[in-house]
Amino acid sequence: MQKTFYFEENGIKLNFRALELVNSGSLEIGLVLPASLVSDAPDLRLKTLKVGQVGRSAAIFRVFEILLYADYSYGKQKGDLVLIKKLLDYMETPQYLRKRLHPSSPLLRCAGILPPLATPHHPLQSKRRDLRDGEFREGVVVESGSKGSLVDIGVEQPVRLSGVSLRVNTRVTVKVVIKDNKLYLEKVDSGEVGDYWGYVVNISKDSLGSTLKKLHSSLIVLTSRYGDPFVGVSERILERWRGVGRLFLVFGGPYHGLREILEREKIDLYGIGDFVVNFVPDQGTRTVRTEEAVSAALAVLNIYRGTISK
Amino acid sequence: MQKTFYFEENGIKLNFRALELVNSGSLEIGLVLPASLVSDAPDLRLKTLKVGQVGRSAAIFRVFEILLYADYSYGKQKGDLVLIKKLLDYMETPQYLRKRLHPSSPLLRCAGILPPLATPHHPLQSKRRDLRDGEFREGVVVESGSKGSLVDIGVEQPVRLSGVSLRVNTRVTVKVVIKDNKLYLEKVDSGEVGDYWGYVVNISKDSLGSTLKKLHSSLIVLTSRYGDPFVGVSERILERWRGVGRLFLVFGGPYHGLREILEREKIDLYGIGDFVVNFVPDQGTRTVRTEEAVSAALAVLNIYRGTISK
Repeated sequence: MQKTFYFEENGIKLNFRALELVNSGSLEIGLVLPASLVSDAPDLRLKTLKVGQVGRSAAIFRVFEILLYADYSYGKQKGDLVLIKKLLDYMETPQYLRKRLHPSSPLLRCAGILPPLATPHHPLQSKRRDLRDGEFREGVVVESGSKGSLVDIGVEQPVRLSGVSLRVNTRVTVKVVIKDNKLYLEKVDSGEVGDYWGYVVNISKDSLGSTLKKLHSSLIVLTSRYGDPFVGVSERILERWRGVGRLFLVFGGPYHGLREILEREKIDLYGIGDFVVNFVPDQGTRTVRTEEAVSAALAVLNIYRGTISK
Repeated sequence: MQKTFYFEENGIKLNFRALELVNSGSLEIGLVLPASLVSDAPDLRLKTLKVGQVGRSAAIFRVFEILLYADYSYGKQKGDLVLIKKLLDYMETPQYLRKRLHPSSPLLRCAGILPPLATPHHPLQSKRRDLRDGEFREGVVVESGSKGSLVDIGVEQPVRLSGVSLRVNTRVTVKVVIKDNKLYLEKVDSGEVGDYWGYVVNISKDSLGSTLKKLHSSLIVLTSRYGDPFVGVSERILERWRGVGRLFLVFGGPYHGLREILEREKIDLYGIGDFVVNFVPDQGTRTVRTEEAVSAALAVLNIYRGTISK
């Protein structure tokens, strides 16, 4: 479980999350996914379902970031990149904040069929009287003044966030405080929450090669059917992961794998990143779709992550 | 890879597949799935997609059997059981045999959105001239007489299966023989094929408890969030699996897990089967859907299977 420790230094709170993360052996997983994830789906409805499958996998296995890249050409795939980000962001947003943070968009026309994420930051309670002291919530600022802000946290009325004045429509993680029969909120860093608290989605405008170079401080594991079987490299991956704390799993598209994508940049599959791994040895099918490879690789890494952090 | 050896004894061919299977360390996986797999999908289209996801997972990880059971009541769930079986059977059937073996049915109204299985027994070639000597094919008998049968194997014309007279519409696995410029077929056991050759689907009319008792000669692994983390029992599972050869993974439904389903029969989760395993430790979501649990558990077992059979 992630925890954040704050240290005061000259009155400034320092976030030691990253440091603590590595020391405690709590290991994070990020995904690097191609725009063509949705290219083998013929219509928006099926594209939406495919993204929904990825969003669910990410949440089940506690992914902290999804980084999208153009596996063919940024210019030609910008539309798909924006669509995937929009759908993943929408899924990750608690239901009660969606209307405000995601005004209607043609990209969300089929969003009704997205499966619920059902993470701890998507609470089921929507009554003020069910709020517990110390509970964390996602909220959005609906009013702001010199004395503080009013934040919608999914109960009947917005609740006061004291001391901080934030721009309207800012999304914020808060802690519920109930003291002397008064209810108010405190702003917190989402890393402070012990539970899994959703993912962030980013789009890289760079080629895959340049994108991966920028992630060099994390452990980079490329997935490929031409990679080493996981069992052969698992020990070395776990050792490196324990040291670095953060691992990015990189995936190719349904028609072109990472080898082909990198070849276009004249980069060898083994010439970038830390490991090239086959997470589906002896596959029974000719191809494994990106969303299928994502859930398989995450399931395997998650089992092994358990052996380290315990 | 599975291989079958035949031994002649008094002119009768004996199939030593099962024996050879265990000795070579080739390990099989079967799935036991609840009817309510599709109960959280509101319409036929989404039910179809959910079954499609399971069919793909089964094929990717080379599942040999899918056994369906009523997790609530056979009488009330018969419709869903028949639907799931129909869709999985349809997916497993090579495209060129579907029209004949699966005449139109209201259950298949949305079957067009099922993803292709893309297994070796769904060949891409459909021309007689592309057939290779020794290649295996799935076929269906379209004509039969005293001299043999004509079998549709997905090329322009049916091909002669000599010596054997089978009932029209029988599905059959054949080997293509090209000798002295003549093309004919030989009937084989699908176990003789080295590649993954699809799954069979069965419906159990018994309760889950009785169903599992009938599978006692196989290793039975129940999946549950209340189970042991996989890493803690993996060694023992692998040892037992190696001895038995065949493992059934058992899943509960999206609303009620195996513990609740077995409780209704007054059976303790740990009182039946060989292991109770949590394949998704520290899950980030409140629930894991059946089709999600299936792909996660298969991915993990498949990685470990690789460590034995090599």
